[in-house]
Amino acid sequence: MKKISRRQFATTIGKGIVGTSILGSTTLACGMENKPEKKKLGMALVGLGSYSTYQLAPALQDTSYCYLAGIVTGTPEKAKDWGAKYNIPKTHQYNYENFDNIADNPDIDIVYVVLPNSMHKEFTIRAAKAGKHVICEKPMAMNVAECDAMISACENAKVKLSVGYRLQSEPFTNEVKRLVKNKTYGDVLFVSSDAAYISKGDPNQWRLDKKLSGGGALMNMGVYSIQSSIYGTGSNPISVSAQEFSTRPEYFKETDETITAQFEFPGNTVGHMMTSHNVNANRLRVSCESGWIALDPASAYAPLSGKTSSGPLNFKQESQQKLQMDDFAKHILQETPNVAPGEMGKRDMIIVEAIYKSIKEGGKKQLLDLGNMGIVR
Amino acid sequence: MKKISRRQFATTIGKGIVGTSILGSTTLACGMENKPEKKKLGMALVGLGSYSTYQLAPALQDTSYCYLAGIVTGTPEKAKDWGAKYNIPKTHQYNYENFDNIADNPDIDIVYVVLPNSMHKEFTIRAAKAGKHVICEKPMAMNVAECDAMISACENAKVKLSVGYRLQSEPFTNEVKRLVKNKTYGDVLFVSSDAAYISKGDPNQWRLDKKLSGGGALMNMGVYSIQSSIYGTGSNPISVSAQEFSTRPEYFKETDETITAQFEFPGNTVGHMMTSHNVNANRLRVSCESGWIALDPASAYAPLSGKTSSGPLNFKQESQQKLQMDDFAKHILQETPNVAPGEMGKRDMIIVEAIYKSIKEGGKKQLLDLGNMGIVR
Repeated sequence: MKKISRRQFATTIGKGIVGTSILGSTTLACGMENKPEKKKLGMALVGLGSYSTYQLAPALQDTSYCYLAGIVTGTPEKAKDWGAKYNIPKTHQYNYENFDNIADNPDIDIVYVVLPNSMHKEFTIRAAKAGKHVICEKPMAMNVAECDAMISACENAKVKLSVGYRLQSEPFTNEVKRLVKNKTYGDVLFVSSDAAYISKGDPNQWRLDKKLSGGGALMNMGVYSIQSSIYGTGSNPISVSAQEFSTRPEYFKETDETITAQFEFPGNTVGHMMTSHNVNANRLRVSCESGWIALDPASAYAPLSGKTSSGPLNFKQESQQKLQMDDFAKHILQETPNVAPGEMGKRDMIIVEAIYKSIKEGGKKQLLDLGNMGIVR
Repeated sequence: MKKISRRQFATTIGKGIVGTSILGSTTLACGMENKPEKKKLGMALVGLGSYSTYQLAPALQDTSYCYLAGIVTGTPEKAKDWGAKYNIPKTHQYNYENFDNIADNPDIDIVYVVLPNSMHKEFTIRAAKAGKHVICEKPMAMNVAECDAMISACENAKVKLSVGYRLQSEPFTNEVKRLVKNKTYGDVLFVSSDAAYISKGDPNQWRLDKKLSGGGALMNMGVYSIQSSIYGTGSNPISVSAQEFSTRPEYFKETDETITAQFEFPGNTVGHMMTSHNVNANRLRVSCESGWIALDPASAYAPLSGKTSSGPLNFKQESQQKLQMDDFAKHILQETPNVAPGEMGKRDMIIVEAIYKSIKEGGKKQLLDLGNMGIVR
């Protein structure tokens, strides 16, 4: 058995946790039966950009079922800073080359891939091969084929896979799902979803580089519109058409600036969405037979706000990322539902591809045959 | 000169008005110069359906520059009831056959056409030929060619023509126009407009009969979405694409149920709209560089409600129809701007035709060359 590290010992004893993974890690093969169940899973963040820095790492200080156990970065200075700030020993610090050694670290149960989109597939598969559960940031990958490879790798390695859809754990969002599922206002007839912000920053940022991002607003914010169109109706769309608009081609050289799309859903439901890197808008509106539900903002990191035709919605405001990571850890520890499984990310990428195809074909309607793929009830 | 009626005498004396039209009516030819300027114009409502009954006639009890002077109806019982209720003498009651005799009635200055869409052209032209100014309900006509004929007829007869766009006189709407024009929140980047209601009534209503309506949701509510997309940006669109959705074909046998459309405007502005007879939604959202403006409801008869990124909008709530009819009467009496001229109705019909064409062509983008047609600043 791998020698237990000082920090691991301190962490696990200090938090009342036995320092071994219960699932998928190398320590399982060593015959440690009869150990008490692990209560808090160790998470390694792969990629220490702003999302890891300002959202995930702070959230991991408040999580109940997982904690920040390791980091993976290509920048030695970041490793040093994070190691000091979060008390992460060198043994739990990796770079992109030696990342696969994480297989030998029993403290790391979950790998959270927070890299540019083009690296999601590689690091998800490497994490799975290392026997680690994976959360992969949205959009899940560059295309559907990559999603398939990632899902297969996780299935083969018998590890869990989740997409970084924090809103699936967020209370306003879950209230929308509940009201829709219960038909509180009757059938949903129309859903409108905008997810957009004005990008004016560094023209060399990876999001503007199609090789790294795979696309622009649609890949980044559009998946929120797709997600909310689906949880706002409780159904996958059966068709989509789409249009692309370009007003600042000098800035958005390779990636889509603004995209609108229209959906048909089973039954009497239709919808449309807008996503943009040149507009500020963050809204969901669900129009039902006898009432409506609205979130604004609907997908910001900041506290969401919502109301219905019956009045305002009020929920405790907590870190969405905290709720999300705890939900995934609970899924592993307690077999609660995986609220954002790989199938959901793949489904959304199928829709993304159909949107790009419709744009290429001048707005032609694309039929979708998704069944209930990715729908978690 | 036509003999003055008892009621005409009473009305004009009682209200301090000299009982002759000042513009375009037959009495002008009779050489009555040096008369004091008329203060309140007489209006005849053509078509006494629910809009005339519940909106226009009540509003005309509160107007300052016009009053209910005559009626035109095909139903003798309605003539009798209205005559009694509003003290309208038989001499000021017409039917669709003898309507042209209105030319000889100096009390009638304005004819308000409140008939099914298929009758707008005929009665606008007949009113113009009778020397009467005209307000024609929206949509202006069945198609652009009819709009052209109506505009020409009014020009030839030297009478004023307005479309029943009550919101162009409405204070929340005018505040949107002002904020956009002044660039209070910078350039408009995106406009989203929904105008829709659920229709479940009489399947034999004229709106569901394409011969009478010319189309469904788009002709009825869609013109509001088009209007608000334009006053929400201050510009006419330069292109449009559109999609049609049908979920209740057994009810909407001939007319469009739900339509979505996307616009490009000059500069950096894009937009989309939804209109439906199967959804309840009535919203305008204008997303600007540094803030936003929203109305919800945006085009209801009921009091509108609005807010911006700076806070709520507050305006006195008055009958929109009262404001609209007074604006048109003032335009005639005082040469104030015509806030909803025929050109505006024609422009919107050009967009309606482009939307139907795009739908027919599978969502293909239609270029529009409108310049500033119908833009009133």
